[in-house]
Amino acid sequence: MIKKVLVANRGEIAVQAIRNLQELSLATVAVHSTVDANELFVKLADQSVCIGGPLPTESYLNMGAILDAAVLTGADAIFPGYGFLSENAHFAKLCELYGIKFIGPSAAVIELMGNKSHAKAAMEKFGVPTIPGSTGFVADVDAAHQVAAEIGYPVMLKAAAGGGGKGIRKVKNRAEMTQAFLETKREAKLSYDDDHLYLEKDLSDAKHIEMQAIADQHGQVVYFPERDCSLQRNHQKLIEESPCALITESERAQLGQIVKQAMQGIKYENTGTFEFLMDQDHHFYFMEMNTRLQVEHTVTEEVAGVELIKAMVKVADGQRLPFSQAECGVHGTAIETRINAENPAAGFQPEPGRISQLHFPMGTMGVRIDTGIEAGSVISPYYDSMIAKIIVHLPTRSETLLKLERVLSEFQLQGVQTNRKFLVDLLHDPVMTAGDFNNRYVEDVFLKNWMERYDRG
Amino acid sequence: MIKKVLVANRGEIAVQAIRNLQELSLATVAVHSTVDANELFVKLADQSVCIGGPLPTESYLNMGAILDAAVLTGADAIFPGYGFLSENAHFAKLCELYGIKFIGPSAAVIELMGNKSHAKAAMEKFGVPTIPGSTGFVADVDAAHQVAAEIGYPVMLKAAAGGGGKGIRKVKNRAEMTQAFLETKREAKLSYDDDHLYLEKDLSDAKHIEMQAIADQHGQVVYFPERDCSLQRNHQKLIEESPCALITESERAQLGQIVKQAMQGIKYENTGTFEFLMDQDHHFYFMEMNTRLQVEHTVTEEVAGVELIKAMVKVADGQRLPFSQAECGVHGTAIETRINAENPAAGFQPEPGRISQLHFPMGTMGVRIDTGIEAGSVISPYYDSMIAKIIVHLPTRSETLLKLERVLSEFQLQGVQTNRKFLVDLLHDPVMTAGDFNNRYVEDVFLKNWMERYDRG
Repeated sequence: MIKKVLVANRGEIAVQAIRNLQELSLATVAVHSTVDANELFVKLADQSVCIGGPLPTESYLNMGAILDAAVLTGADAIFPGYGFLSENAHFAKLCELYGIKFIGPSAAVIELMGNKSHAKAAMEKFGVPTIPGSTGFVADVDAAHQVAAEIGYPVMLKAAAGGGGKGIRKVKNRAEMTQAFLETKREAKLSYDDDHLYLEKDLSDAKHIEMQAIADQHGQVVYFPERDCSLQRNHQKLIEESPCALITESERAQLGQIVKQAMQGIKYENTGTFEFLMDQDHHFYFMEMNTRLQVEHTVTEEVAGVELIKAMVKVADGQRLPFSQAECGVHGTAIETRINAENPAAGFQPEPGRISQLHFPMGTMGVRIDTGIEAGSVISPYYDSMIAKIIVHLPTRSETLLKLERVLSEFQLQGVQTNRKFLVDLLHDPVMTAGDFNNRYVEDVFLKNWMERYDRG
Repeated sequence: MIKKVLVANRGEIAVQAIRNLQELSLATVAVHSTVDANELFVKLADQSVCIGGPLPTESYLNMGAILDAAVLTGADAIFPGYGFLSENAHFAKLCELYGIKFIGPSAAVIELMGNKSHAKAAMEKFGVPTIPGSTGFVADVDAAHQVAAEIGYPVMLKAAAGGGGKGIRKVKNRAEMTQAFLETKREAKLSYDDDHLYLEKDLSDAKHIEMQAIADQHGQVVYFPERDCSLQRNHQKLIEESPCALITESERAQLGQIVKQAMQGIKYENTGTFEFLMDQDHHFYFMEMNTRLQVEHTVTEEVAGVELIKAMVKVADGQRLPFSQAECGVHGTAIETRINAENPAAGFQPEPGRISQLHFPMGTMGVRIDTGIEAGSVISPYYDSMIAKIIVHLPTRSETLLKLERVLSEFQLQGVQTNRKFLVDLLHDPVMTAGDFNNRYVEDVFLKNWMERYDRG
């Protein structure tokens, strides 16, 4: 039985983990780098151990030091959080060897899902749709016609050796194929001295939809309402919401069945998230699986009404899932925004520094602020620049958006630049209000307009 | 149409009101006393007006100054909050005369409910059960037998002239009546030189159960899940929860029907709360009606999933109720504790002072902290000593209690004494855990044991 848990992370996720563990009446151990000695998560833990210098490799990625701290303090389990060692199969394996419970899936499953092509093969084996395309190279125009007809237009023709934006072409219909094929082949030859092409379904205007699930050691699996994380910049999620405004109840149930089947197929234990692309016809295509808790699990907690860190600890401890599928339906809408110490006008460059003054607009119904910082905290250049997650959960999406905008407008902080104003403007955007945005919307449309307005002052 | 609202209050309720008004896109005006100029609620409002000195009579009870401020700023409505002018029929009348919408019931209804005997008569007229007793005095033992048999034992025999604890006797059954009657009569004569007695149902071990409802101008009425506010000291509520742990779904529906009928009977508009005593057989007896929003409305918001300040503004503006009865069922359990600047060990004496350091444990699912203070705020001797309302809302009562205890344990503050530790101990108490406490429990049992433990160190 788990009695004492070492939290192998820092910042807000360490704070929330320690709180959840305390509510489960478990003892807690924080590990921290030399620069983090006075951070909130260290103060909250029952015990703390300094595990090394400020560089992640010296401390939060230092497996030996973390395992030593666990042995030294008598911790019988490790909670990895997100980032750092959370998806490191070797670390999970070491925990197993030390007889310390890693609160997450097995090392074997982490390894399987860490390899993209193995993951894709496993998903196909258990009936999860993946991004359709040619099997290997497309020999000639006839073959291209045939594959494209099978997977449906539009398709992307891509140079096998490509990557720099050359030798890639979107083909909208059959009539365009012959010319596109010959041009792309010529371009590939010129650019890479290699004219092999392959063909994939075009999903450039898709949404990023992900679904989290959790499994216990007794074969029970529960999936949660999906999250729409399409609002991204440079593959960084900016705003996450649950449920997706465009997905129906029956689409959710279908996707849930697929996810559940895959979880059972790969014998997954504990929680993980399946990331999909969803095209305009609401077809889903598996991208990858995250074998850890994600930053945005908060919106799932709110909408499903369950506490996920607690559930992770319980199933790691061999207990049954503390909730049923029927209890994890959709209750209202939850949206999360990430306040970062960064300067949007300067390419979102991180802005480390000391936070002198701070006003968090906690209070009123539906507002949740998860943070690891306090007035006087330092946003360190060594770690990511997230200051707080601001989550709003209300019965309807429109109420949620209005409150989130008010909360972000009220939020105040001195000492570092933040993306607050950028987020307020994004929440205001009519495309955001409609929920009808895809993965490219922020970078291709919103950000360009925003920078123009910004430059004009 | 309401466009600009003056908030005629201070502290946390002013803060939450301003936030809700902002989320409705309404302009806000704060009024404040000279000592409150730098308080959070003043900073958050779009405009603010200083209305007088620190004494409530100089400022927050100063009707003329408040109405002048409303006229000066062009406010078309006034939100009264709780306390101060919130149940002042004369003020509501003045607002009507000024053509400024008072966000609450009509002056006539406030006046009716402000008079206890008129309120009781009105309730009886519309079928609300009140505390049964003799009609006037009980002439002799035979009459006492008869009345007691009608209302059921136990009963209280009370001297009409009483009040100081003399001439009052609990009668458990018929066998005790004759002797009790004669003794009480003799005692009344000796103590007050007046031996008139009356008889009332004994409800000394009852629970304080209240039910809030709201009505719009179109005849629609919605009642909310009941609150159990039995944990009181000196008539001050300490911990409030919704729903009551002992009340069934059908009892709730029955009480709701009674409340709804009374709201319609007295033609009530906007929100109000019916306070009842509930005996051990779960019979309800009307005590009084609060014709305003109460401090503890937060637990109702959480459990019913609706925002009450917004609904009050909407119905005051002539709009229809923004939710139906079916949408206002019970979702989980919410419990509120009030953190006050006071010293429990010294008879809960208020402890005004400046708050130097402050750690609010916001974050994780289900935690809501409504406050009007910040680090550096002053708890003024002029006003009540509440620092914050800490509310937890989770699917089950046991989870809610555990988290509330963790949050209160984490909460830290320097500069003034608080009742934090007292509340943590009360949450720990097995009677609290069982939910099986009555109005007398804190004063008669818990507090005595607590003081003994405190004195022993």
